[in-house]
Amino acid sequence: MRSVTIALGLVLMLGGWLTFPSKGSPVKGMPTEDRAAIEGVLTTQQKAWNEGNVDTFLEGYWRSEELTFSGSQGIARGWNGVRDRYRKSYPDRAAMGKLDFSGLEYRELGPDAALVLGHWHLVREKGDVGGVFSLVFQRFPAGWKIIHDHTSVVPPQTAH
Amino acid sequence: MRSVTIALGLVLMLGGWLTFPSKGSPVKGMPTEDRAAIEGVLTTQQKAWNEGNVDTFLEGYWRSEELTFSGSQGIARGWNGVRDRYRKSYPDRAAMGKLDFSGLEYRELGPDAALVLGHWHLVREKGDVGGVFSLVFQRFPAGWKIIHDHTSVVPPQTAH
Repeated sequence: MRSVTIALGLVLMLGGWLTFPSKGSPVKGMPTEDRAAIEGVLTTQQKAWNEGNVDTFLEGYWRSEELTFSGSQGIARGWNGVRDRYRKSYPDRAAMGKLDFSGLEYRELGPDAALVLGHWHLVREKGDVGGVFSLVFQRFPAGWKIIHDHTSVVPPQTAH
Repeated sequence: MRSVTIALGLVLMLGGWLTFPSKGSPVKGMPTEDRAAIEGVLTTQQKAWNEGNVDTFLEGYWRSEELTFSGSQGIARGWNGVRDRYRKSYPDRAAMGKLDFSGLEYRELGPDAALVLGHWHLVREKGDVGGVFSLVFQRFPAGWKIIHDHTSVVPPQTAH
């Protein structure tokens, strides 16, 4: 009888866990610790960029052939492809300029995935440039990594 | 004894379910039925667009103030905001042209979320235009809906 009670208790407990995340649940904010971890990735990226350290900047991305980056040249594929794109588009410190992220929005997409929206801005001698990005993050044993990046330019004063 | 066996069987079964999706699992392809449902949303959108029916096209989007659309004008917010953006950018059938989606890629992000990458192309008398999009879908009781769209232009022959 005792074994039956324990087993049924376990069934109820597991049933409770199964209801999270519930089907059809609305988009949720992030749990604080996950949000802090993802913020940490982006802060490290911004700092690394502004120190001219592209390698550290790239550590924010999933080191996989399945990493994707959608932008003005189409879809770059794989960690090496994304690295090559950055090296080509930003060959030196002058091209890299000073990077600033702003207006970050965090959304939980499931237990191990998140969407981060934001604005990027580069201050450069040859002229500023900026726009919007959408980052899909996934939780890995090594922490949260960007598995897809869609970055595009927003021309100044396009509001009409 | 029989109840214990049944209860333990249930525990094992639920335990099995719980392992999916596992923490830190790599990005996975979509379950067939989810992929088919999302493909259905996109096929309906493409057909509606090509019939000049923006209202049906917009049914693919989450009808919420939290819907977001990132593009060349920044971030449009809310279902009404996205509708207004479409109406302004594509005021008539000539501007809408003939829409084609291609190269669709589906990725599961969790039990109720998915990422779809693809290319869009508009054939128009005043000149074709096209690019890439990243769609984040979420499962709702009414089915899969786009909760975030990042769409941008890829100028022809930018490969360099």
